[in-house]
Amino acid sequence: MIGDILKGAPAVLNLGVGAFAEAIGEGGDAVLDIDWRPPAGGSREAGMELASLVNCPRVEAANRDAFERFLAADPAVTGIGSAIDVLPGMGARTILHAGAPVGWEDMCGPMRGAVLGAILFEGWADDLGAARSLAESGGIEFDSCHHHGAVGPMSGVTSPSMPLWIVENAAAGNAACSGLNEGLGKVLRFGANGPEVIERLRWMRDGLAGVLRRALGESGPIALKPLIAQALHMGDEAHNRNAAATSLLIKRLIPPALRSGADPDHVARSFAFMAGNDHFFINLSMAACKAMLDAARGVPFSSMVTAMARNGVEFGIQTSATGDRWFTAPAPIVDGLYFSGFGKADAARDIGDSAIAETAGLGGFAMAAAPAIVRFVGGSAGEAVAATREMRRITIGENPAFTLPILDFAAAPAGIDARKVADSGVLPIVNTGIAHRDAGVGQIGAGITAAPMACFVQAVRALHRELAGEGSDPA
Amino acid sequence: MIGDILKGAPAVLNLGVGAFAEAIGEGGDAVLDIDWRPPAGGSREAGMELASLVNCPRVEAANRDAFERFLAADPAVTGIGSAIDVLPGMGARTILHAGAPVGWEDMCGPMRGAVLGAILFEGWADDLGAARSLAESGGIEFDSCHHHGAVGPMSGVTSPSMPLWIVENAAAGNAACSGLNEGLGKVLRFGANGPEVIERLRWMRDGLAGVLRRALGESGPIALKPLIAQALHMGDEAHNRNAAATSLLIKRLIPPALRSGADPDHVARSFAFMAGNDHFFINLSMAACKAMLDAARGVPFSSMVTAMARNGVEFGIQTSATGDRWFTAPAPIVDGLYFSGFGKADAARDIGDSAIAETAGLGGFAMAAAPAIVRFVGGSAGEAVAATREMRRITIGENPAFTLPILDFAAAPAGIDARKVADSGVLPIVNTGIAHRDAGVGQIGAGITAAPMACFVQAVRALHRELAGEGSDPA
Repeated sequence: MIGDILKGAPAVLNLGVGAFAEAIGEGGDAVLDIDWRPPAGGSREAGMELASLVNCPRVEAANRDAFERFLAADPAVTGIGSAIDVLPGMGARTILHAGAPVGWEDMCGPMRGAVLGAILFEGWADDLGAARSLAESGGIEFDSCHHHGAVGPMSGVTSPSMPLWIVENAAAGNAACSGLNEGLGKVLRFGANGPEVIERLRWMRDGLAGVLRRALGESGPIALKPLIAQALHMGDEAHNRNAAATSLLIKRLIPPALRSGADPDHVARSFAFMAGNDHFFINLSMAACKAMLDAARGVPFSSMVTAMARNGVEFGIQTSATGDRWFTAPAPIVDGLYFSGFGKADAARDIGDSAIAETAGLGGFAMAAAPAIVRFVGGSAGEAVAATREMRRITIGENPAFTLPILDFAAAPAGIDARKVADSGVLPIVNTGIAHRDAGVGQIGAGITAAPMACFVQAVRALHRELAGEGSDPA
Repeated sequence: MIGDILKGAPAVLNLGVGAFAEAIGEGGDAVLDIDWRPPAGGSREAGMELASLVNCPRVEAANRDAFERFLAADPAVTGIGSAIDVLPGMGARTILHAGAPVGWEDMCGPMRGAVLGAILFEGWADDLGAARSLAESGGIEFDSCHHHGAVGPMSGVTSPSMPLWIVENAAAGNAACSGLNEGLGKVLRFGANGPEVIERLRWMRDGLAGVLRRALGESGPIALKPLIAQALHMGDEAHNRNAAATSLLIKRLIPPALRSGADPDHVARSFAFMAGNDHFFINLSMAACKAMLDAARGVPFSSMVTAMARNGVEFGIQTSATGDRWFTAPAPIVDGLYFSGFGKADAARDIGDSAIAETAGLGGFAMAAAPAIVRFVGGSAGEAVAATREMRRITIGENPAFTLPILDFAAAPAGIDARKVADSGVLPIVNTGIAHRDAGVGQIGAGITAAPMACFVQAVRALHRELAGEGSDPA
């Protein structure tokens, strides 16, 4: 029997270390190399804890609950409001930022530049030197956008008088907000803070916001899931490719804006501004995704991921069972296609709340909808389609509101299950822009990155403790 | 030797009649069934003439010439003008229609309805009865849109005071025109002619046209190939799916329209009108395609197809070498997906100049760009992609201006070669809307149809006569 195995040519299954398979293959024998790696990042202890969660009835039931609340969400943009007015807990000297909490001394270049710009915009200092002193002094309260019902792309810096989209989920009564997109190049979210940036922010607050507010007052709420769904049929994936959604939004807003009696010059400038920015919709996409996912928060024992976000230093996730707690790991440097003259050495670490798109099943998860994106992030059209298929391995289910034509209208995979990530080794992929590491240079490329395994292992261990009745203490 | 063939199990190649392959396969032997049919529609004589054209140096050189002129075309929309002002040879009592020439007595229901509506619109009669008498009297000069530098979707009815897009090809100095799209439902192009149709046409002439004219005056020419290329990356195919191109056009026109000083109420109504019609761009797409293809006309010995068009009775094509001559065959009934309550028995025969899109490598030829279209025309996403690949077999080349993301940005096949159609049996596919056979009901579905082989056989025979020095006499 054992001896029989060694008679004749063996056919070998190899799991794990690829070098074995290569050696066997070179020797001329048949080998099937199975893509496998140890679960839970290789930690035996974490692997045992993970095992107790897999097929655990309480977790399965909790995930069904959380996922249903997510699917039932119906986000609609209802108006524009100032951050100080519409965000819970926003103080007079609060500045919010993307990702998990990070202090001034640890912030990356682009985020620091954006903070200084916000201070000037608010009029809390007259020049960059004074702004820097104020930031260092402790006189500013810094916190995560996510903790105040908001999301922001790139540095995500949000200050009290900034105008925000208000997105309401009628199904559950929760709301999420995000700012108005400044456009490309030297803009605050990439850390630029020169006079033209401040001037533009002021016009957005005093001109653009008013036009949008009046247009929405005239149009009434605009449901965002149908709009995003249509955009997915027009080559968008709602994170890194937003041209169709932006066009659809503009088309929806034009007639009510013209009917609203807003000043025609303001209207003209506003629509020229929006028409010149193919990513204008991304902030609305992010707020819609947060509104959908916030509805799934706080379900005991659920391993559904409710947020993924980066602050340029750390990549952090949150899960339904563990509330506002962040599970973090160093933010990756993004691999991708760089604009002419730039390379990996110039790149900031991954930054922005925009991974909320992937958390909701859009962006990298819906890449099959957007083969044109490979021109920007790299890879082939076939890989873009394969990416969507791969993500199905780590989600609770699919979101029937978002269908992908090239897959014969298969629904987009949605609802990342932290257990499945830890178990399979398949990491959530994120389509993202790449910022220059220095404040104020702007976007230097785009690419695909993966959420770090360590975040999901930490989340799984915290969930295990919760199930074991130990509460969700910090590890 | 012969005997050897019959020893052992035969492996059989079958060409032509499929029943042989089935019988052999059922008997258990290996059979490879080759998809083949006799060239030139099965006519031995035509097949011999075709053979003389295949690899004929004069035809190859002529096709390279014609194709280059087509690729070099640079259509841009430059303004709006009345048909009587901008179309060569347009008379005071001329009504143009889609497809090859057809007389009143032979016109299908929708075209007749549209003609009567145009007569009322122009004020040449006060009611339908008087309009009908006028049409029957010979007092109207009917002709093909194509003969006057125009193209029209569905019935394509174009009368003197109708406002038309003017599209100019700067590379060769030729121009093509098409009307403004009325929208969906009960509209003139489907044969509706009630008071609301006439009222809408009058507003389009007296309100919408002015706004567009002023916007274009402010914006300057808008290049159409880049816009269509971007739309192909956003899920359009520029014949039956135009939502992205329409949105892009609206986005381009809004700022200049608002700057132009046009009456704000007219602007508001105009943009609400355009924003409500996802096919608004199709007329511009058609005019752009005609401008590209007209540049390739009149190259002696070229078998490149310069037009495909249907008048609801016949499907007609034109080729570069044979000028304005039409090669026609009965127009097919379109197979596709019908709206609820309608079926094939209700369908008009294929109608419209919109097959100019496929002639230019868009529409059915670019279906790989638009998998979402299968929800409207039937089939699967994979079949949509395969259709584009199949069309490459019958074209002279590809148009690098139009790339298809899902095929890793392969260029769309373009420049139908009448010889290749006749030789391979592969018919050009056309994505199209389906009209109700009765005037004024409107669109009842969408589907895929094929240009009839007989048109291409006739064209090949005419080209043969030309090469043989016999001129291109009517067969």
